[in-house]
Amino acid sequence: MPTISKKGQQMPASPIRKLVPYAEEAVKNGKNIYYLNIGQPDIKTPKIALQAVKDSDIDVLAYSRSEGSEIYRQKISTYYSKHNINVTHDDIVVTTGGSEALLFAFGSIMDVDDEIIIPEPFYANYNGFSTASGVKVVPVISKIEDNFALPPIEAFEELITPKTKAILICNPGNPTGYLYSKEEIKKLAAIVKKHDLFLIADEVYREFVYDGNTHYSVMQETGLEDHAIMIDSVSKRYSMCGARIGCLVSKNKTLMQTVLKFAQARLSPPTLAQIASEAALDTPQSYFDAVSEEYVERRNTLISELQKIDGVKVAKPKGAFYCIAELPVKNSDDFAQWLLENFDVNGETIMVAPAGGFYSTPGVGLNQIRIAYVLKKESLIKAVNILKEALKVYNN
Amino acid sequence: MPTISKKGQQMPASPIRKLVPYAEEAVKNGKNIYYLNIGQPDIKTPKIALQAVKDSDIDVLAYSRSEGSEIYRQKISTYYSKHNINVTHDDIVVTTGGSEALLFAFGSIMDVDDEIIIPEPFYANYNGFSTASGVKVVPVISKIEDNFALPPIEAFEELITPKTKAILICNPGNPTGYLYSKEEIKKLAAIVKKHDLFLIADEVYREFVYDGNTHYSVMQETGLEDHAIMIDSVSKRYSMCGARIGCLVSKNKTLMQTVLKFAQARLSPPTLAQIASEAALDTPQSYFDAVSEEYVERRNTLISELQKIDGVKVAKPKGAFYCIAELPVKNSDDFAQWLLENFDVNGETIMVAPAGGFYSTPGVGLNQIRIAYVLKKESLIKAVNILKEALKVYNN
Repeated sequence: MPTISKKGQQMPASPIRKLVPYAEEAVKNGKNIYYLNIGQPDIKTPKIALQAVKDSDIDVLAYSRSEGSEIYRQKISTYYSKHNINVTHDDIVVTTGGSEALLFAFGSIMDVDDEIIIPEPFYANYNGFSTASGVKVVPVISKIEDNFALPPIEAFEELITPKTKAILICNPGNPTGYLYSKEEIKKLAAIVKKHDLFLIADEVYREFVYDGNTHYSVMQETGLEDHAIMIDSVSKRYSMCGARIGCLVSKNKTLMQTVLKFAQARLSPPTLAQIASEAALDTPQSYFDAVSEEYVERRNTLISELQKIDGVKVAKPKGAFYCIAELPVKNSDDFAQWLLENFDVNGETIMVAPAGGFYSTPGVGLNQIRIAYVLKKESLIKAVNILKEALKVYNN
Repeated sequence: MPTISKKGQQMPASPIRKLVPYAEEAVKNGKNIYYLNIGQPDIKTPKIALQAVKDSDIDVLAYSRSEGSEIYRQKISTYYSKHNINVTHDDIVVTTGGSEALLFAFGSIMDVDDEIIIPEPFYANYNGFSTASGVKVVPVISKIEDNFALPPIEAFEELITPKTKAILICNPGNPTGYLYSKEEIKKLAAIVKKHDLFLIADEVYREFVYDGNTHYSVMQETGLEDHAIMIDSVSKRYSMCGARIGCLVSKNKTLMQTVLKFAQARLSPPTLAQIASEAALDTPQSYFDAVSEEYVERRNTLISELQKIDGVKVAKPKGAFYCIAELPVKNSDDFAQWLLENFDVNGETIMVAPAGGFYSTPGVGLNQIRIAYVLKKESLIKAVNILKEALKVYNN
């Protein structure tokens, strides 16, 4: 029997998807589930995007350029300029989702055993991409008590070694909903410049910023041109996760030439989805306004309902559509599975993401869950009520 | 200035795409180019595939399952059964092109510094995937004089070390058009079983087999279940390279569980293209018959025209739509660039792929080019005439 690679053995199973078999079993048994576990919004994809694919007149569904079609990249750069991000199409490589942009970034700047510092809790798949790339995640812990604010600069500097190549942030953050301030970005900029590191910012939730706050991109920071790598995606912005179109943006020419070689090896990003993504750029601002209003309402409902439960702690998110909640349980993996297998309120239960998978430090976050507020207000109220009732039963 | 990774520096530029700037310049100067350099067929994509996307009724363009939609995997397994390949949907993970299937296979079975044996010349991007994975390609050279037949078993066994994890073949082969016989597959099966290796077979050209020959898949070989990994794609079969849908197929359960973890980390393959790929499976046999007839005519034309040129050697392909031609030149990189920059016949020239990039042994194949016969017969005749005239001028 031939052997599996070490990294294949070490690859983490998705913390979000590992409960799927229990959910499928629950559905088979007639339970209705409120899915709070995954960032798949119920928001409709802009019609203009899907219609462009229907209207396309294609004889041969051919490869696009490896870096993405020139016209699409030009249109994205125009889009960015409206967000005060000044880049040209040459600073952009179109990728198969933000996932591939992260893999290209990791491959271009890190070799095996190199280190990347990431504030915890973080998007679970950063663990997967790091393992796949043979890279070591060095976590710096942000705390629910501090609303997941950036840890002090000293906490980063203590962790930097000769093997450190980058700091990675998600802004606004999945799973915390935390939005970094301009001052925090400037602090990170100072560290990466001092230590010659890259600063990778996963900004796929840029458009989901609430309460009059403003998003400050790493691409806006003067003097950071050679250090900043922005990861982006159409998945959340236009509720088209299935398109699998993202991009990597940087003004560092040597980096971009390297990224292009990775892009060429896999030939091209998907052509049909690029057509949809290009058209999506014409989505009117009213779409985003409506979506933002909807998420703010959902968030407010979710947070206020959660705060009514004894023993539940929650950080109020300023962006994205997730929050981390601390529960009066010891092991949220067990609790999440129990919710699917053994609990219901009138035939209904909830599916949540245990937060342990969002940390790389073993044992941390085991009493936390991530809730994605991707459901309507009424459903969220019912879902939190189920959580409340469940905690009473589970803790007895 | 932060530094690029070693592997990023080592990533090969695409030998097919590096001439693109010269081609673009030639077009700007009014030259007409016959593109023989890339495997992008001019064959029309089946209407049924594109129409399915137009007919789709999608509100939210959502993620599919990481392993690909169940119905699509079931339909692929039915398709395979018609080719005497008996697998179930559980043996299939849908990927973003054959490229991603190769990356998942490499990641699942090899760690940094592990070795993979590949008969040379081989598909150039195997070099890129190997570099990206930190894996060492160990080439075993097949020769134009032998029509690129499998080298003797001893040649493989001499190369096997404790670090060897797999043998990779492309069948039928890009860039050689070579079709492995059942006996050759059985020989390879014996080696991988004896040495506990994986046998990866890139079979994306399965349907392009000529002259009454039959394709024998590694999945048909009894006793090879734990060793065989098949790579497939819709790109060439349905002339839909831009869809970016492929799959990885294996009966080795431990391997498939590992592959699934890589698949989960990148969330899902593209949804729109899966709709097109599922519909494409209903393409009638008459489409393939017409395509096959067309390619046989093109191949026969190309080979007979090439054989008329003094000093040109060519191996007759039994499958796929490429051939390797040996030219009376010292450096085909230089020659290919010169064709674009300095030569034309009545304002027309050709773009070919220098074959050096299809070898990992330095210095080998420098007098060879790969020609993709993806153009109509009349164009191929004109293109070979340009090559003939060019050789006269170039060699003086």
